[in-house]
Amino acid sequence: MAAPGQNNTILSVVVMTMADTQKPNSLRKVVNKCNSFILPGSTRPGCLVFYVNSVAVGLIRQDILKQLKAYPDVFILNDKEKGDQGQPRGLHLSQDLDTFEKRTKKIEQVLRSLQQKDALVSLRGWRDECYSISTGFGVEPLLKVERAAACLFGVSQYGVHVNGYVVDDFGDILMWIGQRSRTKQTYPNMWDNLCAGGLSSGLGVEECAIKEAQEEADISEEHLENLQAVGCISYMYEDERGIFPECQFVFDLQLPDDFIPRNTDGEMQDFKLLPVNKLRELILNEDFKPNCALVIVDFLIRHGILTPDNEPDYTYLVEMMHISHRSYITDPATVATAQ
Amino acid sequence: MAAPGQNNTILSVVVMTMADTQKPNSLRKVVNKCNSFILPGSTRPGCLVFYVNSVAVGLIRQDILKQLKAYPDVFILNDKEKGDQGQPRGLHLSQDLDTFEKRTKKIEQVLRSLQQKDALVSLRGWRDECYSISTGFGVEPLLKVERAAACLFGVSQYGVHVNGYVVDDFGDILMWIGQRSRTKQTYPNMWDNLCAGGLSSGLGVEECAIKEAQEEADISEEHLENLQAVGCISYMYEDERGIFPECQFVFDLQLPDDFIPRNTDGEMQDFKLLPVNKLRELILNEDFKPNCALVIVDFLIRHGILTPDNEPDYTYLVEMMHISHRSYITDPATVATAQ
Repeated sequence: MAAPGQNNTILSVVVMTMADTQKPNSLRKVVNKCNSFILPGSTRPGCLVFYVNSVAVGLIRQDILKQLKAYPDVFILNDKEKGDQGQPRGLHLSQDLDTFEKRTKKIEQVLRSLQQKDALVSLRGWRDECYSISTGFGVEPLLKVERAAACLFGVSQYGVHVNGYVVDDFGDILMWIGQRSRTKQTYPNMWDNLCAGGLSSGLGVEECAIKEAQEEADISEEHLENLQAVGCISYMYEDERGIFPECQFVFDLQLPDDFIPRNTDGEMQDFKLLPVNKLRELILNEDFKPNCALVIVDFLIRHGILTPDNEPDYTYLVEMMHISHRSYITDPATVATAQ
Repeated sequence: MAAPGQNNTILSVVVMTMADTQKPNSLRKVVNKCNSFILPGSTRPGCLVFYVNSVAVGLIRQDILKQLKAYPDVFILNDKEKGDQGQPRGLHLSQDLDTFEKRTKKIEQVLRSLQQKDALVSLRGWRDECYSISTGFGVEPLLKVERAAACLFGVSQYGVHVNGYVVDDFGDILMWIGQRSRTKQTYPNMWDNLCAGGLSSGLGVEECAIKEAQEEADISEEHLENLQAVGCISYMYEDERGIFPECQFVFDLQLPDDFIPRNTDGEMQDFKLLPVNKLRELILNEDFKPNCALVIVDFLIRHGILTPDNEPDYTYLVEMMHISHRSYITDPATVATAQ
């Protein structure tokens, strides 16, 4: 871990207001990266809506559809405008699976079968951790699936991220960031927030943030009294594994000067305390895991470091960090709908 | 002006975590009201894209189109899939108007003519204040129009809102709100933020917030040193006047205990300092101007008073306060596009 000198800190706000905010290598690139699925060139136009119990819950890509077609008793394909039973166009989980338990069990069987065939790269990362599937956060889940498989069905995934920060004697903000372990399955060695994690089925949101803070950065109960929910960010990207509509609940945690994080679960290899202008450099150099960069951009906006007067893409950044998954999942041809 | 006793204040957080967050009269209603244009039942399906210089900048409703058709040398209607000159379907401002000045002048002539006919209710509220029209905030404007007419073209309008608040000895937050004057053209007598205003053509965002704070609440330069940009909210509604894609830049301003606002421009008739739970009641009773209610919901989320664990509509509220106007204006049939 390394702490910067006070001199660097004083420079931070000045640097932020300079012309470098207009460089082609802009923060716009970061929010676009996290929204690759909804931007031109994505696989979106070819995707099918995934229905469970006649409710749209996700999106299925053609490469993944090809694999799921091998299980026609589980996944019913309606590729006409109206299917045989008057159902909308899309991939429907069999109506015979009429309870949470039946759906969960049958999908797990299919996924284990696909894993044995090594048909889908995402299943190489099986975690034995389950995510709930429903039509929105807090809505009664229809089933749960293995975390590594959520991207196959393009269903919303939820997580928590904690911004740990210190305010120095000059009133300037320094932020604690963590470097992901070399052996992490995803984004090894990249920079991350102080602590973060996926929201597993059944856990409260603050409860999850506290658990991650204790495991990933050894933060004491006393320090966690300052933990504050400050909003959520949402975006949609895709990669070779599948489609990721993600929503991260964000927490701010002001820490005392003398606090030093310590990783206890092997997920982080290092921590650094950096002034905000240094964070911006790391973000633009793409040294951060992309969604962690987004969490920091949101922090810089909420704390008045990026402003409408010094950041030309201000409104674009804010909008693209708060995408409505429902509007893309429910009906790709219209936009938001009331729930 | 009235200040509450400390006893009320202590109750606030407790009240927020009670079951009343689940009442049918929920905050969801507030964000939906501000997004009436994008929800089912709106006039959106019948609207035409408004093009200036072949760029989509707004949306035209059928009732307004009917009036604009009386000026066929200014507004060229392409109601086929591709128009005569290969232009997309929509209403095009004449290409003969090839400079900012020509467009501004010609549109003003049309608007004055429509005003004389008393053909459009929105023009009764002529303000002699101009708004810029472009494809996004900070993008070179193509023309400017009278503020009261912006809703006729469904173009994005920008403003500033300031949350003035006090933190009491218990660490609880109380917020200053203002009651709009009886004689205000829009939303008379309703509750508002401490100060707010439209962003006129040519003014900086913070500059505008400072101006409104001085005029509407007599806030001194010393107190304004705490003014902090904290983000923006965006939404789209419609009413009898037209379509309002609005984006409000939000500022927080922590004030000392002994500060008392004083209106100097006749726009406010009263001010009150209220604990957060009282604000929620006023919001649910629809005593607030709707977009000011949204600014407060955003404040309650950023300050950890509404949380993912106590507000069932948390993610929905956040998404619906950060709508991308561009995705609705550029192409109603797809969603967000890269800029």
